[in-house]
Amino acid sequence: MNRLEERILKDGVVKEGNVLKVDSFLNHQMDIDLFNEMGKEFKRRFDGKPINKILTVEASGIGIACIVAQHFGVPVVFAKKAKSINLDGKMYVAEVESFTHKCKNQIIVSQKFLNETDHVLIIDDFLANGCALQGLLQIVQSAGATVEGIGIAIEKGYQPGGKMIRNLGYQLESLAIVEEMDWQTGKIVFKEQ
Amino acid sequence: MNRLEERILKDGVVKEGNVLKVDSFLNHQMDIDLFNEMGKEFKRRFDGKPINKILTVEASGIGIACIVAQHFGVPVVFAKKAKSINLDGKMYVAEVESFTHKCKNQIIVSQKFLNETDHVLIIDDFLANGCALQGLLQIVQSAGATVEGIGIAIEKGYQPGGKMIRNLGYQLESLAIVEEMDWQTGKIVFKEQ
Repeated sequence: MNRLEERILKDGVVKEGNVLKVDSFLNHQMDIDLFNEMGKEFKRRFDGKPINKILTVEASGIGIACIVAQHFGVPVVFAKKAKSINLDGKMYVAEVESFTHKCKNQIIVSQKFLNETDHVLIIDDFLANGCALQGLLQIVQSAGATVEGIGIAIEKGYQPGGKMIRNLGYQLESLAIVEEMDWQTGKIVFKEQ
Repeated sequence: MNRLEERILKDGVVKEGNVLKVDSFLNHQMDIDLFNEMGKEFKRRFDGKPINKILTVEASGIGIACIVAQHFGVPVVFAKKAKSINLDGKMYVAEVESFTHKCKNQIIVSQKFLNETDHVLIIDDFLANGCALQGLLQIVQSAGATVEGIGIAIEKGYQPGGKMIRNLGYQLESLAIVEEMDWQTGKIVFKEQ
């Protein structure tokens, strides 16, 4: 069991409606030491890949991506969710559905920061249905860049996102894959890796 | 001149309408090495303060805050902008106006992650009118926590936010204070520190 899985068992809370709350260490309060452990593990799993850029999406992916980026020595680009007056110029755009916020968003990356010479590691905090990830993959594809891998903190293994992405041939590494969880007992079972 | 100021002169772009675009290294693509230099400098400026937590606001503050946090050995809490179904329980709420997005947002921090024992360093990327910062200060005050200092990457020194915050007695440290900028010539002048 790795440090993230241990932490989920210690501080994660299962709530009704398929919600795993990890806001005390992952996506509201953020434990930077833990993020560094995750960065080391992603570096081990993607060792030897010619990664020159990390791509994530605001907001909760950004912290993890920045700490992980130190282990690869590369910059981070985050896709923005709202159209900003400061985002001028040509942009890659993808539409994604959000389970958490129950709405559709466009995510946007400036074309200045992603092109066909880039070898991208995508980082995000959660993978469930894979909507956000599909949007990021679409943006990388629009740029003609190469996806070298996808690193996820927590995957809900009983939802279809992970399987679909792996079926497409991507190297998808999730540090914790939840196979089942029960809000009434609080039980969380991880897939053995 | 520090590394952030040098980088602004090299890669920052002044646009019509009081816009300083630093999206190639600060708030869309993020240069993690630069963030580490900024973290070192904040550590120097706030040395000896009993800081146990960093507070920022999504989205563009998060990356800087996480890297800076490593230099203080503390966790980061980021205020969220939208109401999420995963944010249950009691929350601190403040209303802030956004210059960039031309709208009002509520920012929210769970009461679990900030209380009267906390000694907080607030970190953000930009300070102009100080609306976001006032919201964060209001949240720290609601929690009964102590503001040990405020660290900003870029302050627009000709706008009122910085002066107001300093008048309130806070130690506000901005790594680059823009005194004037001109979109027609591209000229940027920093305040000497």
